[in-house]
Amino acid sequence: MSLPKHNSSKQLWRNLVDTPAVLVDLNVVERNIARCQKRCEQLGFTVRPHIKTHKIPLLAQAQLDAGAMGITCQKLGEAEVMVEAGIDDILISYNIIGAAKLARLKALTEKARIIVCADSGYVVAGLSHAFADAKKPLEVMVECDTGMNRCGVTTAAEAANLAQEIFRAPGLTFSGLMTYPAADQGNEAITWLGQAKEACQKAGLDVPVISSGGTPDLFKLTANDIITEYRPGSYIYNDRSLVSSGAVTEDDCALSVLTTVVSRPTKDRAAIDAGSKSLTSDTFGHADFGTVLGHPNIQLASLSEEHGHLKSKSTAGLGQIKVGDTLRILPNHACVVSNLFDHITFVRGDYFVKHQTVAARGAVK
Amino acid sequence: MSLPKHNSSKQLWRNLVDTPAVLVDLNVVERNIARCQKRCEQLGFTVRPHIKTHKIPLLAQAQLDAGAMGITCQKLGEAEVMVEAGIDDILISYNIIGAAKLARLKALTEKARIIVCADSGYVVAGLSHAFADAKKPLEVMVECDTGMNRCGVTTAAEAANLAQEIFRAPGLTFSGLMTYPAADQGNEAITWLGQAKEACQKAGLDVPVISSGGTPDLFKLTANDIITEYRPGSYIYNDRSLVSSGAVTEDDCALSVLTTVVSRPTKDRAAIDAGSKSLTSDTFGHADFGTVLGHPNIQLASLSEEHGHLKSKSTAGLGQIKVGDTLRILPNHACVVSNLFDHITFVRGDYFVKHQTVAARGAVK
Repeated sequence: MSLPKHNSSKQLWRNLVDTPAVLVDLNVVERNIARCQKRCEQLGFTVRPHIKTHKIPLLAQAQLDAGAMGITCQKLGEAEVMVEAGIDDILISYNIIGAAKLARLKALTEKARIIVCADSGYVVAGLSHAFADAKKPLEVMVECDTGMNRCGVTTAAEAANLAQEIFRAPGLTFSGLMTYPAADQGNEAITWLGQAKEACQKAGLDVPVISSGGTPDLFKLTANDIITEYRPGSYIYNDRSLVSSGAVTEDDCALSVLTTVVSRPTKDRAAIDAGSKSLTSDTFGHADFGTVLGHPNIQLASLSEEHGHLKSKSTAGLGQIKVGDTLRILPNHACVVSNLFDHITFVRGDYFVKHQTVAARGAVK
Repeated sequence: MSLPKHNSSKQLWRNLVDTPAVLVDLNVVERNIARCQKRCEQLGFTVRPHIKTHKIPLLAQAQLDAGAMGITCQKLGEAEVMVEAGIDDILISYNIIGAAKLARLKALTEKARIIVCADSGYVVAGLSHAFADAKKPLEVMVECDTGMNRCGVTTAAEAANLAQEIFRAPGLTFSGLMTYPAADQGNEAITWLGQAKEACQKAGLDVPVISSGGTPDLFKLTANDIITEYRPGSYIYNDRSLVSSGAVTEDDCALSVLTTVVSRPTKDRAAIDAGSKSLTSDTFGHADFGTVLGHPNIQLASLSEEHGHLKSKSTAGLGQIKVGDTLRILPNHACVVSNLFDHITFVRGDYFVKHQTVAARGAVK
């Protein structure tokens, strides 16, 4: 593992970090990477972590060093940042459409192995048009909707038809099936993918990779003969939604938001310096906006843009909380938080490691 | 007004902008600035626009050119960007706490007129400690909670007490009262502020400025002898929440998010390339995530990180919408959207003006 250590002077991050700040504990990151890698190996999956959670080449490299065979990006812009940093095997799990993006995609394939996906003839036609004269064919997977109701073909027959369309299209090669399954539908997804694989094989096509993803499902899945590759994302940081789902504990959460209490207007209320521009309004089924770590009776009840508003969950009120205190928030959803900060802070326990640029933040194109 | 025009070649933005993209129509921006300035002048208020909505010095300058006497920032980092761009009169409507920020604040006051606020003795003590040896005293307003339940002292008596604390504190000067009123509580806020003004005057203090804010309230307010300054923010762009509140119409909305349909998995569903990392999950009381402009029967029903999921509101289904189509989304909340994009695109009607950096994006510290 190539992640940096704290230096020998052992500076405490408390003395070096102003708020609001995203803290990422690399000790926890390393544990999370190792545990996920081991779990995938036990299940016989190759690992292709989704970097949308962290958007940092250094962490992608740590995932590769631990045994991942490549990474996954959601947007072309993320892949460009990762290739620039030297990562050379990337699945972009997104329909890439339009002349501008296709030209960027083609340029990227000159520098690294890039695999993409498609769920319609329109997407396949665009890719084929762009790659018909390419030196080597573009690898294209069929995106399958196995229950999440997002993108993806919705039947095994459609999957096989689109696979054949890719196979026949100039400049393209069919390289497998890809899904993002609904939580707790792991088995349903496997049945779906098994039928699609069979339909492809009946049509005379090899299905070299069948890729699934999602952190919550990873520890529920059992070994099977269908899935060959897994794309976990959130596991590297984890967050409150994963704690609530039972997948992990608070100790497994690497990312927290350090805040300062800036106002204590009444006995019952306090405001911190992190609002929706630091945490986002994602609730993920919760009634509030994050866990105030170490303060089980305090609720982060609402957010304005630059303030979070704390209330007491009990008649005890907010107790000793006073202006100037620092509090750590475990956000509902880590992936959107790391997308808000240009820079975060790597720590190890109480110790400062380094400030870190989030190089692919905001790469939505 | 100093905003750029489209150039003589009149290029259509449709040919120049890839998605997802934030489009800001400067024709609408100019109308919005002029209308708000006129309204405030009719009411006898000086204008100090809140730049948290746009975070762009060029637009702040246009607000000043139209007659604003200064600007408002919510965070010190925003003010630093604005001062760097040459803006020299800024209210930071936020409690500034801690040695690191106080040192930055002090450096900023060497370059521009900076006013801050406070709602507790803790904040006043910190400011005084930092400015006791300053060449000129720091102007400090008392933040008042007139009904919003955010920050601010909660009674007129507390306001007068804190005003006196500021008046007596070395390095500080008391410069007025500031509130952000709850919508539809304009009159209640005015009564509150009138009582606080009287309490300050009874204690022998002048109250040179009484500052209120909020776009929704601006067109409901009537002339009064209390408020002297107004800090509207959202009015420069407007958004779906302001349309829903009845304050403006869709034609008054300058900001939209241009997206491409990337998937059409079933007759009833489509996915666009803007999700919570482009629009945020802010609902502001809506059941969904934005208005699909020109398509009243289509609902932006849910968001994943990089996809928005469209459904039909009627039995007619999604009709002719197909992969590759572009759609414009009016977001629920413009301020958080402009905070997600490093660059946006200025247009005038159908014409491209320029790509624009959002210089104070992410300045949460």
